[in-house]
Amino acid sequence: MPKTMKCFVMHGLGKVGVVEKAIPRPGPIDAVIRTTAALICTSDTHTVAGAIGDRHGLTLGHEAVGVIHELGELAAASGLFKLGQRVAVNAITPCYACDDCQRGYTSQCGGMLGGWKFANAKDGSMAEYFHVNNAVANLAPIPEGLTDEQAAYCCDMLSTGFVGAEHANIPIGGSVAVFAQGPVGLMATVGARLRGAGLIIGVESMPSRIALSKKFGCDVVVDFTQEDAVEAIMKLTGGKGVDSAIEALGSPATFAACIKSTRPGGTISNIGYHGDGDTVPIPRLEWGVGMGDKTIRTALCPGGSERMGRLMRLIETGRVDPLPMTTHRFRFKDIERAFKMMQTKEDGMIKPLISFT
Amino acid sequence: MPKTMKCFVMHGLGKVGVVEKAIPRPGPIDAVIRTTAALICTSDTHTVAGAIGDRHGLTLGHEAVGVIHELGELAAASGLFKLGQRVAVNAITPCYACDDCQRGYTSQCGGMLGGWKFANAKDGSMAEYFHVNNAVANLAPIPEGLTDEQAAYCCDMLSTGFVGAEHANIPIGGSVAVFAQGPVGLMATVGARLRGAGLIIGVESMPSRIALSKKFGCDVVVDFTQEDAVEAIMKLTGGKGVDSAIEALGSPATFAACIKSTRPGGTISNIGYHGDGDTVPIPRLEWGVGMGDKTIRTALCPGGSERMGRLMRLIETGRVDPLPMTTHRFRFKDIERAFKMMQTKEDGMIKPLISFT
Amino acid sequence: MPKTMKCFVMHGLGKVGVVEKAIPRPGPIDAVIRTTAALICTSDTHTVAGAIGDRHGLTLGHEAVGVIHELGELAAASGLFKLGQRVAVNAITPCYACDDCQRGYTSQCGGMLGGWKFANAKDGSMAEYFHVNNAVANLAPIPEGLTDEQAAYCCDMLSTGFVGAEHANIPIGGSVAVFAQGPVGLMATVGARLRGAGLIIGVESMPSRIALSKKFGCDVVVDFTQEDAVEAIMKLTGGKGVDSAIEALGSPATFAACIKSTRPGGTISNIGYHGDGDTVPIPRLEWGVGMGDKTIRTALCPGGSERMGRLMRLIETGRVDPLPMTTHRFRFKDIERAFKMMQTKEDGMIKPLISFT
Amino acid sequence: MPKTMKCFVMHGLGKVGVVEKAIPRPGPIDAVIRTTAALICTSDTHTVAGAIGDRHGLTLGHEAVGVIHELGELAAASGLFKLGQRVAVNAITPCYACDDCQRGYTSQCGGMLGGWKFANAKDGSMAEYFHVNNAVANLAPIPEGLTDEQAAYCCDMLSTGFVGAEHANIPIGGSVAVFAQGPVGLMATVGARLRGAGLIIGVESMPSRIALSKKFGCDVVVDFTQEDAVEAIMKLTGGKGVDSAIEALGSPATFAACIKSTRPGGTISNIGYHGDGDTVPIPRLEWGVGMGDKTIRTALCPGGSERMGRLMRLIETGRVDPLPMTTHRFRFKDIERAFKMMQTKEDGMIKPLISFT
Repeated sequence: MPKTMKCFVMHGLGKVGVVEKAIPRPGPIDAVIRTTAALICTSDTHTVAGAIGDRHGLTLGHEAVGVIHELGELAAASGLFKLGQRVAVNAITPCYACDDCQRGYTSQCGGMLGGWKFANAKDGSMAEYFHVNNAVANLAPIPEGLTDEQAAYCCDMLSTGFVGAEHANIPIGGSVAVFAQGPVGLMATVGARLRGAGLIIGVESMPSRIALSKKFGCDVVVDFTQEDAVEAIMKLTGGKGVDSAIEALGSPATFAACIKSTRPGGTISNIGYHGDGDTVPIPRLEWGVGMGDKTIRTALCPGGSERMGRLMRLIETGRVDPLPMTTHRFRFKDIERAFKMMQTKEDGMIKPLISFT
Repeated sequence: MPKTMKCFVMHGLGKVGVVEKAIPRPGPIDAVIRTTAALICTSDTHTVAGAIGDRHGLTLGHEAVGVIHELGELAAASGLFKLGQRVAVNAITPCYACDDCQRGYTSQCGGMLGGWKFANAKDGSMAEYFHVNNAVANLAPIPEGLTDEQAAYCCDMLSTGFVGAEHANIPIGGSVAVFAQGPVGLMATVGARLRGAGLIIGVESMPSRIALSKKFGCDVVVDFTQEDAVEAIMKLTGGKGVDSAIEALGSPATFAACIKSTRPGGTISNIGYHGDGDTVPIPRLEWGVGMGDKTIRTALCPGGSERMGRLMRLIETGRVDPLPMTTHRFRFKDIERAFKMMQTKEDGMIKPLISFT
Repeated sequence: MPKTMKCFVMHGLGKVGVVEKAIPRPGPIDAVIRTTAALICTSDTHTVAGAIGDRHGLTLGHEAVGVIHELGELAAASGLFKLGQRVAVNAITPCYACDDCQRGYTSQCGGMLGGWKFANAKDGSMAEYFHVNNAVANLAPIPEGLTDEQAAYCCDMLSTGFVGAEHANIPIGGSVAVFAQGPVGLMATVGARLRGAGLIIGVESMPSRIALSKKFGCDVVVDFTQEDAVEAIMKLTGGKGVDSAIEALGSPATFAACIKSTRPGGTISNIGYHGDGDTVPIPRLEWGVGMGDKTIRTALCPGGSERMGRLMRLIETGRVDPLPMTTHRFRFKDIERAFKMMQTKEDGMIKPLISFT
Repeated sequence: MPKTMKCFVMHGLGKVGVVEKAIPRPGPIDAVIRTTAALICTSDTHTVAGAIGDRHGLTLGHEAVGVIHELGELAAASGLFKLGQRVAVNAITPCYACDDCQRGYTSQCGGMLGGWKFANAKDGSMAEYFHVNNAVANLAPIPEGLTDEQAAYCCDMLSTGFVGAEHANIPIGGSVAVFAQGPVGLMATVGARLRGAGLIIGVESMPSRIALSKKFGCDVVVDFTQEDAVEAIMKLTGGKGVDSAIEALGSPATFAACIKSTRPGGTISNIGYHGDGDTVPIPRLEWGVGMGDKTIRTALCPGGSERMGRLMRLIETGRVDPLPMTTHRFRFKDIERAFKMMQTKEDGMIKPLISFT
């Protein structure tokens, strides 16, 4: 049995590399997973750019699946798992015991964004092995019919994109605008479809993403470099605005456009990470001077094995096929090259799959 | 201009026929529609069998579309409509002003089931012309891209079937059982699909309906004449039961099976009309002795032009195609023959379309 | 019978006065009320200061009760009312028929803030008589046990204050901060109490309002001129922040403080009118960079006779007593003096009651 | 340190007594509490009568508070607790990790009613010491201002009674009927008050309970031995029925009366334990033949330290005072006598407090 493993780490602002670390050991309620497949997330590149401050030696990554390598005694005693079993682990791994988890806000475990532990509060999963806290709640067995690659998309892309739609309070047959059609926005489009939207308007400018967004369910895509997105949405909805808008980018301008293009009584569902500025401004008049019944919600990728099971089922029964998002494939030994491409999104990269086997 | 019209009426228990009546005139906020297409509903046959008591000369029908023939002065002044415009009118036509409507329970307008006016509190729509109360709220313009036949399905079938799914509190990727796959059950299946169910189990025994239910979105169909439906659902859900069950038949046995096959914390959504017996029994133990967190909801076809607009949009953007339910087509002059077939469901009749043009 | 009436109008920016107008006549579904009591609202002073633009001859006022003077034919035919009956009419008088009303957003009737008709889309109620559209939905009979003064408080103060609490998603026993303890904030405090808050923290600096806020249900009042409100709230909640914050002022600083003092997963409920600036900024970090599960809701005073009935019942059964807010009383002939005092809030004015009898 | 403790156990159907057992030891995530105060619950008497089958040597009790005697290593490492600290433990102690807990249905932990572990799946708390699983989620520190007796009421009475009101979907100012005013019904009355009910109608016949129910918040109490409860409620609500009915007894007749006295669109919230019969019948016609928009919910006492904290806060800030329910007081050495009285409710016993110190 090996004692050490290769990990892809952040060495400091803008610097990454592969290092050797000891394979982690689980506490009584934890598990350790041997990684088989992982995806790189744009938020990994934000982290390296300094989004959560300077870090040295922190293993990156939060979208990974693998097989159970070791179980803590209580995790083993649960009888739910066995060694070697294939499992997916969500990017967010709450404790499911604290006040915030009891309230149902598991992504805010122990405080703001506290469910986000991988590559933040502890080492991430872009390594040959990774540690999972609270195994009973966080290890999601992968159904036989699913490949590792498919399951990996549930860890963040499906969970985050879909919650954008779940929070958007879409009436059956309602109209939805999804701002930005990157991987999370594409999955928000699928999510809007899954919640029964009758009209989905994507907002995007990159031709490859426009094409994908139509494949994934947009009825119309507005290219904001060609026309004003808010005006276009207003025209498409007979001057009323959409029932729901999903912000899947994380920019003040996009957020403002969401408020403006949503009708009174509608919902703005934010899933974009807002990385800049002291404030994110709400346009006052279009917000109804604070009385327009427009609801603003936000979310951080909901975790937990129960949700993961539902997300994987949607792939299993053919409701969703995330694989068209895999534009590139790499072996883990080539992770640095893959990561560099993800930083620049060169070659139209949407999601690169990293194989460990 | 003609002054009279042909109407298909109930002459008494078990007796129907066509009679001549004066074309109705609208009050200030009402409208009169010239019918172009209509569907017969199984509930019309219940009415003739005595479900709402003995009636003499009551025009039947509540699933009809047409063109605006006359508008009351205030309805005209709204500027929303013009004579000759194609409109669909939901089976349920609430006043939208009373206490119950203000509370949001428009189907219970003015009291229990009070939104149900057609062929109950007033003449129905299986006639060459029909009267619509509260025109602003109840006349739904038909989009150009929709045929009259498609729009007619929104009046009851889509609205009732879908509300079964909307009330079922289906988690994204969750499991749903739909009991009975008649036209309302089929649309409940479509509704479950539209709300993001990851696994839909139909319960049905007629081969033609089993085939349609798969076409409309069931992943599995349990034939309750071949196996116990509750046991089969338990097996399909790993012993847990479904997240949501939809009762689309209206029988005590089916209702009990819904309770039994739904997991604790799940929802039973009843849309079946329960016509017999003093009580509808809840099985005590499977209800968790009154503490199992199983929610029971019910609904009567929600009306209103806003909802009708969303339902028609789902057809327009290709999310739903109800036409496979039209198994038979008739001219209005043959309404008696069509109705007789609907009473017996002979020749595998699901929905017969009646044309007035 | 008199043909004309005295009305208190806006003559232009900053200018008011009393003029004579014809007594209005009702359309078929409307009513005309002879006013008996009214309250002046701070928003009337905003209107005169230009909040909705320059207006000439517009009758002010939207918090009034009276007796039915005349009913339109359909309103009379409803059988719900009789001439001379005491009724209260909410500040917001939706049509209850349009798309937005059907969706349940009656305050947004026909478009943003469109339910607000008095002293905006039509003459207000600070006159000897006033017109009420859609009488069936908007005339709320006053129970015998209530005085006109008590009922007048339901028209805006209770409805707006309470909806602030209803939208705040307060868990039973949860913690709530109510920013500003003017009349609407005081009623939000009462509302938080009515929804089961376990800890209510008021934020206010005027001693007379601090005293009233404790009377109406605040457990603690933070004087923001003496200490930082956000820090004080954090300390009072063990560093966690409140479950819910209610913004009852309408200032960017207060709104930002609401976001900052609400815990992740909590709700910010805005009922303050935001009159200044292009934007209302959300503090980015305390919003969880758009992922902190903090929900922002807004509302405009919900109307309708059904709600009015519930609000009046709360006074009738002794749950609420709004009368301590009446700091001053005037006859209608002294309306100009009363209004001038309301503009400056001199003499600690909170609400002035205007009597017409 | 003692190694053994006295426990009040069920010896078989109808038989109870005090026995000596080893003091339990905690697993890594558990705790052991030294009991200071406890309440006897009517459901303990049901258990002894055979409600959950024959049991031998099972310690009874599930409403107890005490001080932390021993902590498992991970519970200690959480840093949340210290030995000797006063804590309350809810009757229901979910794992907060399984599928059902992740879904938010913690009382259904691991399956139907599975959160109910005390005196069911493991020994109860009517003993000198008791074991608590999943300590981080289940140990609720008692605030300084609360007595042990007050805190003990949060373990079941407040949590169960209040959830009856929380599930009842009471509109602000709405009308509520609470059927049966035993300790749980009394707390449902308080809960209805806390959720903003404008009219609370109790249904009860025992004079002492009628008196208490008025003290705790009923506006009217209907004595069903003197008049028909449904008719009386209809009369009190102008023929409409209540917005919400709470079943706090667990009898088919009461449940049926709840359905009958609730208006269309209203909610029936069941918290009574239904111990008899194969089925609990819904009256068909008053249920709107399955289409009346009447929602039926159920609950089992929600647990967890976060909720316990909110319940205790409501006592701390003076919103609720449960002590009038303590009609009798005993030392633990007299537990058998206390229990016998609770079986017969002799001497008007409502809740007997058992002291261990």
